[in-house]
Amino acid sequence: MHPEEPHSAPPNPQGRLQVIGLGPGDPTLLAPAARAALNDAEHIIGYRTYLQLAGPFRADQQVHDSDNRVELDRARHAFQLAAAGHRVVIVSSGDPGIFAMATAVMEALEQAEDPTWNAVDLQIIPGISAAQAAAARIGAPLGHDFCTLSLSDNLKPWSVIARRLQLAAEADLVLALYNPSSRARPYQFREALALLRGYRAAETPVILGKAIGRDDEQLIITTLAEVDSQQVDMRTVVIIGSSQTRLIQTTEGRRWVYTPRWYPATAAE
Amino acid sequence: MHPEEPHSAPPNPQGRLQVIGLGPGDPTLLAPAARAALNDAEHIIGYRTYLQLAGPFRADQQVHDSDNRVELDRARHAFQLAAAGHRVVIVSSGDPGIFAMATAVMEALEQAEDPTWNAVDLQIIPGISAAQAAAARIGAPLGHDFCTLSLSDNLKPWSVIARRLQLAAEADLVLALYNPSSRARPYQFREALALLRGYRAAETPVILGKAIGRDDEQLIITTLAEVDSQQVDMRTVVIIGSSQTRLIQTTEGRRWVYTPRWYPATAAE
Repeated sequence: MHPEEPHSAPPNPQGRLQVIGLGPGDPTLLAPAARAALNDAEHIIGYRTYLQLAGPFRADQQVHDSDNRVELDRARHAFQLAAAGHRVVIVSSGDPGIFAMATAVMEALEQAEDPTWNAVDLQIIPGISAAQAAAARIGAPLGHDFCTLSLSDNLKPWSVIARRLQLAAEADLVLALYNPSSRARPYQFREALALLRGYRAAETPVILGKAIGRDDEQLIITTLAEVDSQQVDMRTVVIIGSSQTRLIQTTEGRRWVYTPRWYPATAAE
Repeated sequence: MHPEEPHSAPPNPQGRLQVIGLGPGDPTLLAPAARAALNDAEHIIGYRTYLQLAGPFRADQQVHDSDNRVELDRARHAFQLAAAGHRVVIVSSGDPGIFAMATAVMEALEQAEDPTWNAVDLQIIPGISAAQAAAARIGAPLGHDFCTLSLSDNLKPWSVIARRLQLAAEADLVLALYNPSSRARPYQFREALALLRGYRAAETPVILGKAIGRDDEQLIITTLAEVDSQQVDMRTVVIIGSSQTRLIQTTEGRRWVYTPRWYPATAAE
């Protein structure tokens, strides 16, 4: 125990595991609680791209980087270190609770290999997710009811994704789509667009936010008719408007997209 | 212009309007960009409860508080001040882009009473929304596809809300429900529960997060069978699990709720 350091004393001898989100990547959007967790950590675990955004780290901190596809292994490793009494941080991008590491941590805890994992002081620190960062750049497309879906069919069948897209389209919800495409599965976003074009107007605003908050960020405003599935990759979040979502162009040439707070009685019928 | 202050020089003579979110209320979850905007503002506008959380302010800052029901007036007032050359901040709770002030600001801009509003340097700074803060406290209930709905029928008919609830239930999406009830409309959450009980199992986890991140925060874990519509108010966010959402209890007596990353092929049929 280190009583001289206000954040460093775990409440039990089993150590502490904090699961943090970096937010979109811009340090001015990183929660102070997440920054404090990073400063106070003895061990920092994460996908190496996120660790590069989270660092630099001190010489007395141990950094454990890994590939992006081993989430459950990372969570187990974190519990092992924390159960041995260490202060451990798992780094996610965005919000750890939205398509990120908090879920894998819960899975590891439920299947705990070692009963001492139950005594770890586990804390999840929320963050700003990619769709929120992209929305803020462009106005307020998520200002009304919306649905957040991952298009990845690594862990769920495409039939479930297609059905959810169809029902969300029938409900006229704005869509925030994560993991729209990858090299291993280039077809999902194309199929999602084909489905949604059956429900929504050609001029429906579509926003593509790539790496928002990072040095190479790219934001594209397009329409449901014009968007091309080649424009997205795993780092892109896609926002597709509802029937009510509006594009406004200022006299200064700036474009904004928002979904009004009100909804007419007839539009969803 | 004040070139000696790094954040203070607006890029044009029309002033600046920043729309910020306080996050859940805990200052350790407030984005540094939002804190900087507050520090640098000449005029700060918002619902008085949120201004109390955002303050204290300096004697040289002008604070304009208001009732919670005049969002469009607040947005117009902010544009007037910014168009006159001032540095203005509008304060929302949570994320300004999720059922908060960014949408009203967009509405005011689209209907601009004065063309000079178009030249205002408008910035929206995202924040951590209430559902994310509640989710982090309890595990990872939003770790899979989910739907974010407001149950308020102030600005949309109840028939639209009921239809969206039904379609989201058919899609087996986790639900994050904002504005579940108020004194003026106590029936919405009761009706939403009646509808959802037709689709989901009695033991489906339900989380009620009231004022999470504030001094009087309250977090309740219950089930779809047991939750009572009297337990919620306007400051409560409700998370209702999907068929896959799991409650786990550690050997230390701590309860967690999460929605796994995977989804079986048969569960949604």
